[in-house]
Amino acid sequence: MEPSAAEVGGGPGSRPNQSDGYPEGREPAIRVLMMPRDTNPLGTIFGGVILSHIDIAAAIEAHRHHPGRVVTIAMDQVVFKQPVFVGDLVSFFTETGRIGTTSVTVKVLVWAQRFGSKDRSFVTEALVTLVAVDDQGRKVGIAKSDARQRD
Amino acid sequence: MEPSAAEVGGGPGSRPNQSDGYPEGREPAIRVLMMPRDTNPLGTIFGGVILSHIDIAAAIEAHRHHPGRVVTIAMDQVVFKQPVFVGDLVSFFTETGRIGTTSVTVKVLVWAQRFGSKDRSFVTEALVTLVAVDDQGRKVGIAKSDARQRD
Amino acid sequence: MEPSAAEVGGGPGSRPNQSDGYPEGREPAIRVLMMPRDTNPLGTIFGGVILSHIDIAAAIEAHRHHPGRVVTIAMDQVVFKQPVFVGDLVSFFTETGRIGTTSVTVKVLVWAQRFGSKDRSFVTEALVTLVAVDDQGRKVGIAKSDARQRD
Amino acid sequence: MEPSAAEVGGGPGSRPNQSDGYPEGREPAIRVLMMPRDTNPLGTIFGGVILSHIDIAAAIEAHRHHPGRVVTIAMDQVVFKQPVFVGDLVSFFTETGRIGTTSVTVKVLVWAQRFGSKDRSFVTEALVTLVAVDDQGRKVGIAKSDARQRD
Amino acid sequence: MEPSAAEVGGGPGSRPNQSDGYPEGREPAIRVLMMPRDTNPLGTIFGGVILSHIDIAAAIEAHRHHPGRVVTIAMDQVVFKQPVFVGDLVSFFTETGRIGTTSVTVKVLVWAQRFGSKDRSFVTEALVTLVAVDDQGRKVGIAKSDARQRD
Amino acid sequence: MEPSAAEVGGGPGSRPNQSDGYPEGREPAIRVLMMPRDTNPLGTIFGGVILSHIDIAAAIEAHRHHPGRVVTIAMDQVVFKQPVFVGDLVSFFTETGRIGTTSVTVKVLVWAQRFGSKDRSFVTEALVTLVAVDDQGRKVGIAKSDARQRD
Repeated sequence: MEPSAAEVGGGPGSRPNQSDGYPEGREPAIRVLMMPRDTNPLGTIFGGVILSHIDIAAAIEAHRHHPGRVVTIAMDQVVFKQPVFVGDLVSFFTETGRIGTTSVTVKVLVWAQRFGSKDRSFVTEALVTLVAVDDQGRKVGIAKSDARQRD
Repeated sequence: MEPSAAEVGGGPGSRPNQSDGYPEGREPAIRVLMMPRDTNPLGTIFGGVILSHIDIAAAIEAHRHHPGRVVTIAMDQVVFKQPVFVGDLVSFFTETGRIGTTSVTVKVLVWAQRFGSKDRSFVTEALVTLVAVDDQGRKVGIAKSDARQRD
Repeated sequence: MEPSAAEVGGGPGSRPNQSDGYPEGREPAIRVLMMPRDTNPLGTIFGGVILSHIDIAAAIEAHRHHPGRVVTIAMDQVVFKQPVFVGDLVSFFTETGRIGTTSVTVKVLVWAQRFGSKDRSFVTEALVTLVAVDDQGRKVGIAKSDARQRD
Repeated sequence: MEPSAAEVGGGPGSRPNQSDGYPEGREPAIRVLMMPRDTNPLGTIFGGVILSHIDIAAAIEAHRHHPGRVVTIAMDQVVFKQPVFVGDLVSFFTETGRIGTTSVTVKVLVWAQRFGSKDRSFVTEALVTLVAVDDQGRKVGIAKSDARQRD
Repeated sequence: MEPSAAEVGGGPGSRPNQSDGYPEGREPAIRVLMMPRDTNPLGTIFGGVILSHIDIAAAIEAHRHHPGRVVTIAMDQVVFKQPVFVGDLVSFFTETGRIGTTSVTVKVLVWAQRFGSKDRSFVTEALVTLVAVDDQGRKVGIAKSDARQRD
Repeated sequence: MEPSAAEVGGGPGSRPNQSDGYPEGREPAIRVLMMPRDTNPLGTIFGGVILSHIDIAAAIEAHRHHPGRVVTIAMDQVVFKQPVFVGDLVSFFTETGRIGTTSVTVKVLVWAQRFGSKDRSFVTEALVTLVAVDDQGRKVGIAKSDARQRD
């Protein structure tokens, strides 16, 4: 539980820490605890559970730029660097990429904190493209006005 | 979507904003999007859904002080100041209160961000008491060493 | 499985039984079996699952007095006397407390029957306050006419 | 909400009431509120949701006679007399039928109380046969000793 | 994993295979993987989970004959020949039986493929009767025109 | 049910049909009905729900080549060509791609059949890479013997 050398500053010879690169001080779009009901028949967390939360996180970020309806139209390649276990607290951080006329791309970074540990493991990242649509599902324009502002 | 006067500084006569008191810059213990499957027969979010997430958030905070098993033994009075709707992004912030020999009290603050809005509404707060237990459910001592450290 | 002395009558020296105080002959507002999907990462039932059912039970009782929409606005302190396990059959008994102009208080008593046992354990009790609201969430009056009648 | 003539006594010519036959004063094996998450794509409750609860109720009744593992091996014809809606409070009453060497038959009676109403509608009944099995799924004998005792 | 003699042709003395009778080359109405969240407190799959999927499969088949709303009104006796386990891939095959003026009967055949095996086990079959209803739940006529044709 | 002109050959001016390319006569890895509980706050199906089922389908296909534990390590870019709605019957077809020493790639094709319609819409396709692991999550070799055989 005590901080590793790397966390309190590190120095020559400090061992590489999995938490390197963790977006300290940033608020996650969503943060969820992995529950037994999220497991597959082998007792581990399905990759699909993480993909599902990535999609939700991306939609939340996209709504920061467009208050109306958005739908996911693409997710770039996702590579899982680390597995996720029951009891992990998993954080999904988002960054707006390009804002087009009718679409937004959102980068989602996924970090897991193991049960009973303070270390964070980088799980994966994804680039999600969403489009703004009306009630009939037709593309509509995105209001960019407040795109620069973070909450 | 545009920031209110209060948000960009406020001045004499600026109207009180529901977001006043929001713990800016702090990371939530958990942050979840309210889904249709969380609704009651009238289409609103059950208070019980929020209570359930408060309990999870408190357990996560308690685990910062004790890596083993903890169970909730009490929740102080909870008063709902604002309703929660489908589409709300709900954040649960935690603060450790008193750390006893075998128990921890955790304060949980709940804020909702309405769908398509940047305002946050204070929903409720709760004081949860958890005890550390072993595999047979018997109380065990809590290691306090890293209680001062926040992640 | 065989009845304890206390159950078949008890006598001088019969040991106190956890079931003492069980509301025999009363129908529960809801009664549910605790399932694996209700567990937390440690395999036990989250306190939040019980709080969630308490809220549902209170709403059902409140609807006995008001056929329209009700929302929970407060829950008094809840102390868990006994844990709840997977396989427990948990009963939520309700009693109407005070009926005000726009609010109702409901007492909820929670008892668990362990898997493969006839004994019941008192888990907790709660006092829930609900208000009657219209479709816009504004408080409305409660019709008290049939408050005395139990189903 | 006001009681019908039949409920307050009925008299010559009082119309038959759907609640006739409701097992007054008996405790249900389980009692659950139908939630939006139980609906099918048309917004109604799937028959399968009711069948699933019938199965749980039957297992609970069977456990009154056998504390170990039981599995459902048959369900007799089920006819739905009334639909079930979101918001209905549905009660599952059970009666032990025949107790054989390794099997138990349980009759399950299903009644729904409509949202905002005190009337109950008879939904369906089912006859479920369960067998006692060991950890490897092999049939084992049932201890009948306490079969006569109700909770 | 290798095919048994019976599968590659069988001959005099080839042992009976559980997969005999499997509807090779037919598409299932639905096919689902049994997950930990489908288990009962003893870790096995509730019969009710299978009954629930049978009901969904029957509704899908009925919709082949009637594009509007259908509701289940009866399920004939169901006998479980084999248990279903977490990790089983369970297929529900459907056949239209009798098409009446307002009702359709659907036969549902259930087969399970065990985790890590190619053998299929026959689990159960059911005969489900559904009726076509309008938005108020009143029976309506079924258009039979394309009843003979399978997709 | 009757084939459109385009399906039976099409002629000059026959309109392109969304079902072109549907893998007729092939069994899906999984086939599921989209339910209200799968919707996002806007009432549509989250892309994440589809991604989650793609992952399950890929694992099922991978298990045809390796009876032990497999985990998803990558999913190539996924582009959604068509939305998915509540009531859609969604089929996930799988094809084994490359079988390496410790990994398998699986192509997953997703088709949706709209509620009350016989047309199928191509939704998306994905290329999923899974690795075989032991109980400690270390890569293990894949037995290729029966890779050519389809069930």
